[in-house]
Amino acid sequence: MSDLTRLSINQETIKQWSLPELAEGCAKAGIDKAGLWRGPVQEYGVERTARLLGDAGIGVTSLCRGGFLTAPDPAGRARALDDNRAALDEAAGLSTDTLVLVSGGLPAGSRDLYGARERVADALAELAPYAAERGVRLAIEPLHPMFASDRCVVSTLSQALDIAERFPAEQVGVVVDTYHVWWDDQAPAQIARAGAGGRIHSFQLADWITPLPAGVLLGRGQLGEGSVDFRALRQQVEDTGFTGPIEVEIFNESLWARDGSEVLAEVAARYLEHAC
Amino acid sequence: MSDLTRLSINQETIKQWSLPELAEGCAKAGIDKAGLWRGPVQEYGVERTARLLGDAGIGVTSLCRGGFLTAPDPAGRARALDDNRAALDEAAGLSTDTLVLVSGGLPAGSRDLYGARERVADALAELAPYAAERGVRLAIEPLHPMFASDRCVVSTLSQALDIAERFPAEQVGVVVDTYHVWWDDQAPAQIARAGAGGRIHSFQLADWITPLPAGVLLGRGQLGEGSVDFRALRQQVEDTGFTGPIEVEIFNESLWARDGSEVLAEVAARYLEHAC
Repeated sequence: MSDLTRLSINQETIKQWSLPELAEGCAKAGIDKAGLWRGPVQEYGVERTARLLGDAGIGVTSLCRGGFLTAPDPAGRARALDDNRAALDEAAGLSTDTLVLVSGGLPAGSRDLYGARERVADALAELAPYAAERGVRLAIEPLHPMFASDRCVVSTLSQALDIAERFPAEQVGVVVDTYHVWWDDQAPAQIARAGAGGRIHSFQLADWITPLPAGVLLGRGQLGEGSVDFRALRQQVEDTGFTGPIEVEIFNESLWARDGSEVLAEVAARYLEHAC
Repeated sequence: MSDLTRLSINQETIKQWSLPELAEGCAKAGIDKAGLWRGPVQEYGVERTARLLGDAGIGVTSLCRGGFLTAPDPAGRARALDDNRAALDEAAGLSTDTLVLVSGGLPAGSRDLYGARERVADALAELAPYAAERGVRLAIEPLHPMFASDRCVVSTLSQALDIAERFPAEQVGVVVDTYHVWWDDQAPAQIARAGAGGRIHSFQLADWITPLPAGVLLGRGQLGEGSVDFRALRQQVEDTGFTGPIEVEIFNESLWARDGSEVLAEVAARYLEHAC
């Protein structure tokens, strides 16, 4: 007996699929939730994507991604805010309640992580009301510390919550992604803190495997291949009362090189084996 | 006016040099301290290395490395303890007071970081008295969280100190390596904690640069190339009263491909520019 009712497939996991293939493949596999990315959605059209997935009975659990809010110059900051407002409009158009935010890295030549994090918080003060008007929650995703300089100055759940808690929980929360937090001995306490505040806006799964590839971005593992204890992390998340979707988001070229249906079947089987 | 009195060169930074070349090159450059690695020392001979460096007026600030103490099986554990006792003998033979420990990663198939860290602590209980008899301090080096699965289950200064503080400070302390801790907003408080307890047994410098190469081990940057605020970290370390050596340890193939004297001169200049 399988229970895929909580499972959501992030479309980047099966990047080789077009949106129509994703809609059809998920529907066939009995998976009724997906996380989307702005690039392919913009290409296909926001309204058209919403209709396509709606017709297939597939709900959108998150849109990736807004963020990149660390620019110190007024022009760069204005561009980033505009882009995030557009992302929030797209999220609303897709009827998803969650926009995932990757904060952005250090500006060129800067060594000031603290200042960069403060600029993220300042930007959220402008974006949160705009998000609230559209019924979309901003979900700050702490990325593994190996991304601190070039992609995301928010490296831990603790840092993400320090920012999120300046805003109402229905406006700003966090993403708990096993790939980014599995190593952190503070994660259990911070998951409890996030859950108690109603701030777990997204729960994502990927495994940690080595050796990491050059650039490290595409090194995520299929569930069960690596070091992540999914059952323990899911338990910690659910002990807080979380009953939301569980989204599998794996960036890995070896998965992209395979048949999409085969990858989807494998993800579902691994999810049942390792995370249920 | 240059002040290289605190500077130590870890030999891996100029791996292209033999030990005699290192001794001669450092002496010529007015640098009287070096950190050594077991492999080249064993090859050249412990006593011979001690004589070579002694004759050149160069002190050994640390020996890299012991550790790899996470094996769960009795045979693997016994082998690791034997190897660490040998490393302590070698450290004593070189008249260095510090053996750097890299804890080791998760055993194959294991997802239990907590259990692995406890095995490190258990092993130190056996090794600490042996080290004390030889006048050598064990220095637990937290490695960046990207090494947590395959190299070092101790990822933060906080975790390293939680283990070290079970033992007398003159037996077990920590390494503060900028490459591994620069991203951590808990580092300043943990450096203060380590210093207050007399447990900063080694202070090492390398810069954080991206993109990371495949395998990530050899991605360290020359001082000043990347995101690390060396002056701030040195200040934090010295605010605790630390007056020990400052060891530059960079693993980077582009440095190894160059003339050793040129690399040494560049390291010294960068040290003065960015860390003094």
